[in-house]
Amino acid sequence: MHQTRERERMEVKARAPGKIILAGEHAVVHRSTAVAASIGLYTYVSLHFPTDSDNDDTLKLQLKDVALEFSWPVGRIKEALPELGSCLASSPTSCSPETIKSIAALVEEQNIPEAKIGLAAGVSTFLWLYTSIQGYKPAMVVVTSELPLGSGLGSSAAFCVSLSAALLALSDSVNLDYSHQGWLTFEESELELVNKWAFEGEKIIHGKPSGIDNTVSTYGDMIKFRSGNLTLIKSNMTLKMLITNTKVGRNTKALVASVSERTVRHPNTMAAVFSAVDSISKELATIIQSPGYNDLAITEKEERLEELMEMNQGLLQCMGVSHASIETVLRTTLKYKLASKLTGAGGGGCVLTLLPTLLSGTIVDKVIADLESCGFQCLIAGIGGKGLEICFGGSS
Amino acid sequence: MHQTRERERMEVKARAPGKIILAGEHAVVHRSTAVAASIGLYTYVSLHFPTDSDNDDTLKLQLKDVALEFSWPVGRIKEALPELGSCLASSPTSCSPETIKSIAALVEEQNIPEAKIGLAAGVSTFLWLYTSIQGYKPAMVVVTSELPLGSGLGSSAAFCVSLSAALLALSDSVNLDYSHQGWLTFEESELELVNKWAFEGEKIIHGKPSGIDNTVSTYGDMIKFRSGNLTLIKSNMTLKMLITNTKVGRNTKALVASVSERTVRHPNTMAAVFSAVDSISKELATIIQSPGYNDLAITEKEERLEELMEMNQGLLQCMGVSHASIETVLRTTLKYKLASKLTGAGGGGCVLTLLPTLLSGTIVDKVIADLESCGFQCLIAGIGGKGLEICFGGSS
Repeated sequence: MHQTRERERMEVKARAPGKIILAGEHAVVHRSTAVAASIGLYTYVSLHFPTDSDNDDTLKLQLKDVALEFSWPVGRIKEALPELGSCLASSPTSCSPETIKSIAALVEEQNIPEAKIGLAAGVSTFLWLYTSIQGYKPAMVVVTSELPLGSGLGSSAAFCVSLSAALLALSDSVNLDYSHQGWLTFEESELELVNKWAFEGEKIIHGKPSGIDNTVSTYGDMIKFRSGNLTLIKSNMTLKMLITNTKVGRNTKALVASVSERTVRHPNTMAAVFSAVDSISKELATIIQSPGYNDLAITEKEERLEELMEMNQGLLQCMGVSHASIETVLRTTLKYKLASKLTGAGGGGCVLTLLPTLLSGTIVDKVIADLESCGFQCLIAGIGGKGLEICFGGSS
Repeated sequence: MHQTRERERMEVKARAPGKIILAGEHAVVHRSTAVAASIGLYTYVSLHFPTDSDNDDTLKLQLKDVALEFSWPVGRIKEALPELGSCLASSPTSCSPETIKSIAALVEEQNIPEAKIGLAAGVSTFLWLYTSIQGYKPAMVVVTSELPLGSGLGSSAAFCVSLSAALLALSDSVNLDYSHQGWLTFEESELELVNKWAFEGEKIIHGKPSGIDNTVSTYGDMIKFRSGNLTLIKSNMTLKMLITNTKVGRNTKALVASVSERTVRHPNTMAAVFSAVDSISKELATIIQSPGYNDLAITEKEERLEELMEMNQGLLQCMGVSHASIETVLRTTLKYKLASKLTGAGGGGCVLTLLPTLLSGTIVDKVIADLESCGFQCLIAGIGGKGLEICFGGSS
């Protein structure tokens, strides 16, 4: 087991991107097509095992962005979660309700401050994925992220994907080139394994996730999805988006329910609205996949995408999921003739603004200054980039 | 001809209401249903003939709101428009292109100030309707209006309807109770005659009017229309709207064309959008026609109408006909939880805000103050009230 030994001395860093919904949110619940894309903003998970000389018998988790640190003696974990000793890294399973309870107790012992209690489910997911894949082994795991938490950009999925990847990278279940310098991509079958584990992790955080976020985060690029069927699509253009986080918290379940209630009250109208959204998503996917030739063709494609975004936004307003903060972003970007739409659940959250290839940096700076003066957070990200990647560091 | 003599000594005043589109603008061009309603804001036309002792041989027109006065010697009119001598008040005809030219020359002689040149077509319509119905007869016609001009509230139709009605009321073609005190309604067949003349007048102003504005102004209440078919509908509820005039001028033809172009680019999406609007118009008509029982039922109906207005507005945004000024009105009224939608062509123009029955006057005052502080003009009007009415004054 020379390879295992070598791995155990390594540090691995995994990164997985966030996602946006380009078109079709809400309507997708009513059997319309939606399109999601990865964004060039990542969550990073680094993992290493202490050497024997460290004499350290604890599992440590550092969440750098929220300045939280947790640590559990591995004996305590083994005692609390004996059933996870028989897990196989190569066979993802779901976390049983009983195990969730035992894990919750382990998390509770850590006394998370009240203001950050929303992170408890993420910590539970960590304990479960860690123990299921690596067993009762001391380690140090550090998490950092460029993604704002809980704003609909798939931060939890990016966490689950990068964590699962780091854990699997140092397990017997994957076969990697450990001598590779720089970022490395997984093989297809390994990506599938990561995606499955990440989905199981997402379940602990979200209950019934759609699987879209972890799939986009794992594979990158874009996916088209409808009625539970996901299709990876190959983007043929470089898209850049301004992502404005309104910082207005929303209740996704309540928003989804309100659209369903409106659908019950106005079945014919809403069926037509969902059908319009379906057409928009399909057209958008076609444009993104079509080959681009030159600057002119790219500008034309961007204009078409902008029009589709404006139309989708109108239909989302028709569904009643916009919000005053979203309207403020729309108004602000419209002043600069830029097209925007909400992304995700609406009712606050994030707004996308397409930044055309030929748009001057001066304009971008002005828009951002305007939006930040409203108290919003602005992020610029490339769309449809790479998914999960890992990188090996020297032995520590 | 005792009756004729009596009429000639009378003063008649006619009033005709403006209109709003409650649902379906733009989509109606693409075969969707739309609903229009009369509003309790009127254009008034008063007419009287000078007595023989006045020794006045001129036709005078006073447009009070714009402080303009015109006068033509009747001999000059007869000389310029000899072909109108054979017109019958009972048989509306279209104004020929040649006659329009001769009339334009008569209007030009009046030297309308450059800033008010937009009123020239209305003055042409006046000369044509007057001469066609009353011939070459001296008279004094005074026009006042509660409707802002050119803002999509049907001011030109209200002018044509009230003018045609006043002219017909003092002609042999209608049979009225001249001794009636107060406002009087025309008989069905007389309304039809007024409506036809008004439509011919509208053609001079608008080229190819839909006939909706003059029909609503003539008959009052509400009409449902689709593919050129108009159906009068009987409203069963009292509706009050705040009408906000953004004062942003728009180019209706260009807006209609832009929706058509978008329809060519995205046929499937737009077909679904128009179908959604069609459902909204039909549902709105059904609610308005359904019997209301008590305050609770009225509140429920109002909430349903508000939701339909919000949905229609989203679909109009999807068509791309909203405007920053419209969005400002929407935002402002939303602060007070009031639902709004643009009415008419969009791109500026007027915005409707439903004022629920149980809404306090204090809130209404606050909303209006907010909107006026943005430079908008606010009008409050009952919806679906009476159409054309006339009133006889004493002999002058």
